[in-house]
Amino acid sequence: MLKVIAEDFIKPDRIGIVTPLYAELVEKTRQEPLCIAYDLFVDQKDAGHFVFIEEWPDRAALDAHCRSEHFRRLVPLINRHQRREGTFILMDAFAS
Amino acid sequence: MLKVIAEDFIKPDRIGIVTPLYAELVEKTRQEPLCIAYDLFVDQKDAGHFVFIEEWPDRAALDAHCRSEHFRRLVPLINRHQRREGTFILMDAFAS
Repeated sequence: MLKVIAEDFIKPDRIGIVTPLYAELVEKTRQEPLCIAYDLFVDQKDAGHFVFIEEWPDRAALDAHCRSEHFRRLVPLINRHQRREGTFILMDAFAS
Repeated sequence: MLKVIAEDFIKPDRIGIVTPLYAELVEKTRQEPLCIAYDLFVDQKDAGHFVFIEEWPDRAALDAHCRSEHFRRLVPLINRHQRREGTFILMDAFAS
């Protein structure tokens, strides 16, 4: 299991432009056969701070997602409206 | 619904000390009646970077968690071993 947090920082006046792009990205990604979870959230203190919480079976599944038609088409369109570069963290479940 | 990401940054030589404290915090928090999800992950690139992904019905439930005996006892014990202050984000679900 691979958990991912991916954060985007969008210019405040561009939120209306990216919203349908994010909606399509979520819808299409959830249709990927290897997608376990792909949920998008918005920071309560910053409406341009978008946070994906994702779950994939493994790194190969994430890499396939990043090669998908919808990812390669939509992510560059979203990134035109960034105010700074996004971040991501790949994580394993905590094991005590 | 309230989604929370809380990140802790622990000194590398203290990971063994905080691990049982995190394990108890997760176990006790999941027993709280209002806890929907409370999952802990570790950054694949930084074994001292611990990331909670939480879900609560509302802010009052999160506040009650922060007032719980286990939170008030364990979090200060964990924080003794921080290398820098933790961060948190409170989020709403994305609505297209």
